[in-house]
Parts: sequence; structure tokens; C-alpha cells
Amino acid sequence: MTANATHRINGESRLERGRRALDAIDGTAGRKVVDALADIAPDFATYVLEFPFGDIYSRPGLGLREREIATIAALTAMGTAVPQLKVHIEAGLNVGLSRDEIVEILIQMAVYAGFPAALNGLFAAKEVFAARAT
Amino acid sequence: MTANATHRINGESRLERGRRALDAIDGTAGRKVVDALADIAPDFATYVLEFPFGDIYSRPGLGLREREIATIAALTAMGTAVPQLKVHIEAGLNVGLSRDEIVEILIQMAVYAGFPAALNGLFAAKEVFAARAT
Amino acid sequence: MTANATHRINGESRLERGRRALDAIDGTAGRKVVDALADIAPDFATYVLEFPFGDIYSRPGLGLREREIATIAALTAMGTAVPQLKVHIEAGLNVGLSRDEIVEILIQMAVYAGFPAALNGLFAAKEVFAARAT
Amino acid sequence: MTANATHRINGESRLERGRRALDAIDGTAGRKVVDALADIAPDFATYVLEFPFGDIYSRPGLGLREREIATIAALTAMGTAVPQLKVHIEAGLNVGLSRDEIVEILIQMAVYAGFPAALNGLFAAKEVFAARAT
Amino acid sequence: MTANATHRINGESRLERGRRALDAIDGTAGRKVVDALADIAPDFATYVLEFPFGDIYSRPGLGLREREIATIAALTAMGTAVPQLKVHIEAGLNVGLSRDEIVEILIQMAVYAGFPAALNGLFAAKEVFAARAT
Amino acid sequence: MTANATHRINGESRLERGRRALDAIDGTAGRKVVDALADIAPDFATYVLEFPFGDIYSRPGLGLREREIATIAALTAMGTAVPQLKVHIEAGLNVGLSRDEIVEILIQMAVYAGFPAALNGLFAAKEVFAARAT
Repeated sequence: MTANATHRINGESRLERGRRALDAIDGTAGRKVVDALADIAPDFATYVLEFPFGDIYSRPGLGLREREIATIAALTAMGTAVPQLKVHIEAGLNVGLSRDEIVEILIQMAVYAGFPAALNGLFAAKEVFAARAT
Repeated sequence: MTANATHRINGESRLERGRRALDAIDGTAGRKVVDALADIAPDFATYVLEFPFGDIYSRPGLGLREREIATIAALTAMGTAVPQLKVHIEAGLNVGLSRDEIVEILIQMAVYAGFPAALNGLFAAKEVFAARAT
Repeated sequence: MTANATHRINGESRLERGRRALDAIDGTAGRKVVDALADIAPDFATYVLEFPFGDIYSRPGLGLREREIATIAALTAMGTAVPQLKVHIEAGLNVGLSRDEIVEILIQMAVYAGFPAALNGLFAAKEVFAARAT
Repeated sequence: MTANATHRINGESRLERGRRALDAIDGTAGRKVVDALADIAPDFATYVLEFPFGDIYSRPGLGLREREIATIAALTAMGTAVPQLKVHIEAGLNVGLSRDEIVEILIQMAVYAGFPAALNGLFAAKEVFAARAT
Repeated sequence: MTANATHRINGESRLERGRRALDAIDGTAGRKVVDALADIAPDFATYVLEFPFGDIYSRPGLGLREREIATIAALTAMGTAVPQLKVHIEAGLNVGLSRDEIVEILIQMAVYAGFPAALNGLFAAKEVFAARAT
Repeated sequence: MTANATHRINGESRLERGRRALDAIDGTAGRKVVDALADIAPDFATYVLEFPFGDIYSRPGLGLREREIATIAALTAMGTAVPQLKVHIEAGLNVGLSRDEIVEILIQMAVYAGFPAALNGLFAAKEVFAARAT
């Protein structure tokens, strides 16, 4: 892994690579977040595409399944980002995590961040799973 | 997965199962934590063995490699548990994560918990890797 | 206090003891949380009954009134668990705290976690008190 | 700056000075918070006026514009006080910050507290700006 | 309880009342914190005496024993204030909590803020208890 | 402000612009952090230069003095990033904040994040000011 991971790769800019990664990972939920920024902070929409998705999620050193395990765990433990947790529970399903695996991650957070954090994560997952079932 | 995951399995109590899991995952670092509780809160040492290790880490629904990804991510994002983060960076290596994979998880936390959280995680890893090299 | 606090006591399992403690402390609010887990993570419902209620709240070293003071303070200071704070404001009233005493705890949190944390705790209490009055 | 900043100044009590500062800074949004405390914790309404506004915001060592930059940044980074963040985005506009400057502060928080904290701050600002436009 | 709790009572100013409360509760540990502020922020030393101690801890609605339970729980759960937690473990002993009761509070925090928070609280208590034994 | 703030400007790459901004703002303290990453995560050193410094601090919409007010406030309120807070107290002095102004920001954080957060911020400033005096 070299620092040019942050530069143009195969003729694709960070922004283009980020948009492709966002679509593959977060699907329509991610695109909605970016669109909602258009009238308040369009530059931040660009940063969201370029840094998290164009730079970080596009790095080859860890699979997307592993990356989503890390993100779901972190957002559940932090407890301050329920909307983003829901987007990434959805993303976890998109990149190959099963519902049962996601539930395992959320349960495990009771150990590190307390039972309320795990409960709030599980209830967020319940909403995402229900919406997806329809 | 059924609720009797919290009970005696194959004749092994939660405490015995937890001790076995702790040794396999955290090695001597975990055992030191448990020992340090002996004179202040011996019951809490028991709980540490029984609930996180006897109950949660012993659940079959997610591999230990995945569980350590989740724990490393959560502790880095929270930023309030550096000693425990070091134990789990060590644990991650014990259950098959490479140094590079751990570094990827820590870098990714910059997106969700900010650059200082990632920096503090990386410097914790630097210490663990250096101690292990000797 | 010995480590067998986590084992069967007087013929009662951790789960049975936890269910009895949950009913006595959290009443219907606690039971609703456990029921809401049935379709997403039934094992976690078991853990909620066994560890916090069967193990911790059942320990003889501190009264339930004191335990609820600690829980209300912690959840208010953390600020990430409003639904659980409401359950425990209710629980505080169930185990003998007066409304005025609960308000004192919430006010005190301004010192340790800031005025917004105290304000959000007081507005949560206002909702719980109003619902109970009807 | 001397410690008598906490005492009566020019014949004005801390409470009077705090009420004047709250009106100047937070306007009707601040007054609503104080009024909402009347039936649950009237003393806390007094403390809100006296300490944050009568003592701190009335100190001469830093301008109100700078103080609101600090408050907006802190509440966005903490992520546990969205109602208070909205009051202070409003307050920022009241004391001379432009919408663009507030957006800059919120974007910057992505670096220190992560992208979800910045996103949640930006969506809070979007609501405040929209309500003010009408 | 009326709002004049924040004013002069029985001829004693908030500052005098706060100094008396600090000495009674935190003892030399509290006085050291106040002294350490003398050269960097003497006004903040005044605020520490006036608001937390002169206003809040001097309120009659809750006993000091209960107030220290709340503070120890909150600081342990937050995990960002180890020096202050140690001062308040000391304070808890000063106002009548036993070592075993303090340990119970710290153990209970595992439920709400996770096992690392409880562990870090217990190790802080271990240091305070050891220093006091000598 | 347009999205090309994230691209090459006046022939200078994000990395070059970031290195220039880091030197101007954080001085040797910032350079030390970047250097310390060389053997564990060199790519993250690049990201630190490119995103926070090349992208965010280089945006024209807010002055560096204002940006450091926001950063000092946020890091103090979060309480999980003392090493980074020290770097930015230093940076605040570098970009024109006086010691008294920095102390005002830290004091104000008592209102939003509690007295322990403000105390820990003030003691960090005390160290930075003392080191700089020598």
C-alpha cells in the first residue's frame, strides 16, 4: 500500500472512485445522504465521496465485509450516529454480511459500550431489516 | 443460536469456557487483567470470564477474527479504553489478523470517530507491535 | 460477596432471578424492552435478564435505591441512551426515589457532563412524570 | 479578569445579567428552554441563567462571535446535544456568524469527531436555516 | 427548594459555602485541584467553588452519600475524567461510602458503559485505596 | 466555495498545500505527529496532510484563528484526545490566539461538557504554556 492510494488510479479520480464505491456499498441510502447535502454543503458531499469512499473504502488491504464489521461496531459503540448506523447495517447486508452476523456484532457491543448501546443498535437493525423485507 | 448458549455446554461451565476463551484470545495480557482484579473485585474477574468470554466470544455465529475486528474498531472509536485496546490489538494478532489488517481498521476509524481517534489507535498499535517484536 | 453470586442461588437460576429483579425494578417498561428483542435477538433478551438483573442488580452489597441513583446519573452523563434513561427514571420511582430526588441527580449532572446533558435528562424526566401522572 | 466576574456588577445581579445575555444571544429559543424548566426544575432554570449566561458569556475576554464558534464546534463534536446545537446555530446567526461560516465549522468537525458528527451537525443547521427563512 | 439556593444563605456567600463544602467532601484532593488553577485560570477556581460546591452540593434535596454515588457512576461511565474520578472515590469514602459500596457502583457500570469503563474505574479505585492505606 | 477546493489549486497538490498548512499552523508539533506515523502507517500521514490540512484548513471561508477556536473547543469537550488538544493549543498561539483567549475557550467548555473536561483542558494548556515559556 503506498501513499498514491489517494491519487488518480487507472485514470479514475478520487471523486469518481468514491461515487462508484458509495454506490456499491451503501446503495440508494448513501446516495440520499449525498443528495441531502446539495443545498447546505455541496463541498462536504464531495469530501464524503472522496475521502471515506474514494480513499479509505477503496484501499485493498481489507475486504468490504471486514470494513463494514468495523463500521457497524464503531457506530454502535459511539451511540451518537443512529442514522449512519442504519445506512451501514444496510451496507453490511449489501457486501455480504448476513442478518445473523450483524446481530452478533451488535450483541458483542454490550461488552464494550454497555447494554444500552447494544439495545439501540439492535432496534436500529430491526427497523432496517423490516424496511428491507417489504 | 439458542438461549442456552448462556448455560453449561458439553459439561463445561460458563466460567471454565470463559477461561479457555480468554487464554486462546487474549493470552497473558488478558490473564493479567483478571489477576489484577483479585484483590479489589474478585467477583468482577469472574464476570469478565463468564459474560464477555464464556457467553459472547464463545457464540458460534461469528468467527474470532471478525469479533476482534469489531472490538478493535469499537475501542478505537470510543477513545476511552486505551489499555483494553492494546489487549485487543494483541488479541487480533493472536486470532489471525495481520498487522496490516489491524492498521487498516485503525485508519478507517478516522472516518467515523475523527483523526485523533485514529492517531491514538495507531500509536497504541505501534507500542504493541514493538513490544511483540522483542 | 463471593463469585457464586453468578450461580444458582436458593434453587433459582440466573434467568429466573433476573426476570424477578427486572419485574421488581423496571416493571412493564423493562418487560417491553425484553419482548421487543424476541424477533431480532432472543438470546440478547436472555443476557439482559441474566447479567444486569440476575447477576448485578441481585448483588446484596448495595440497595436498589442506590443502584438506580448510579444508573440514572450514568445514563444522563453519557447522553446516548435516552430510552434507557426513561426506563430507569421510572425504575427509580419504583424502588423508592422521589421525583425531587431524581431531579436533584439530573441537575447535578450539569457539573460533570455539562448543561445540555442535564437539560436532556430533565426533559426525559418531565415526559416520564407526565405519563405516570395520567 | 478577576474573580468578581461572578458577583454583582454595576448593580446587576448574575440572574439579571444572565437573562439579558440569554435574550441577546439565544433569543426566543433560549427563553423557551428556560420556560420549559418551570414545572420540573425551576432552580435549574435559574442556574442556566446565572452560570452559563450571567457568568461565562458575560466575561469580557472573548467576543460572542468567538464564543458561539466554540459552542457550535463542541456540541457538534459531542453529538449528544442536538436540541442545544440547534439553539446555538440560531445563536451564532444572532451574534453575527454567517450561514457559510457556520457550515465551515460543521464541516471542520469531520476531522475531529468523524463524518457522522459533521453530517448530523449539517442536517441540524439545514433545519434551523429553513425555519428561519420562513 | 427555591431559586435563592444560589444566593447568600445565613450570611455566607456562594464562595464561602463552596469552600466549606469542598473541604468537607473532597478534602485535600479537592483543595489541590483549586490551587493548581491559581496561575492559569484563577477565576475558574472560583467557579469550581461557587457552582458545583456552593450551589449544587449544598442543595438540601439529596444527601452527600447519594451525590457521590451519582458522581462516581457518571465519571466512570464517561471514561474521560480519571483524575476527577479518583478525587470523587476519595470523596465517597469521606462522606460515608464503604470501599465495598464504591466497588459495587464501579462493577454496575459494566452494564451501562461497558466492561472497559468498569475496569478502568476499578483500577482507579485500587490506586486510591492503596494510597489511603499507607 | 466550490468543490474544486479539493483539487490542485495554483499548481499545488493537496499534499503540498497540506504540508504548507501544517507547518504554518501546528509547527514542529504537527510535523512530529506526521513523522511518528512513518513506520506504522505512512499512508495515514499522507491523509493527515491531505484532508485536514490540504482540504479543510485551506478553505477560505473561515480564518485560521476561528478554526483553532473550533478545534480547541471540540477536543476539550470530547475529552478523548489530550495529545491532539495540546498540539492545537500550540497551534492556537501560532495563529494569533492569546493565552487568555485560549483559557476563555477552555473555561467555557465547563458549560457544555462539564467541569472535568474544562479542568483537563486547562491543565493541558498549563503544560503547553510552561513548555513554551522555557
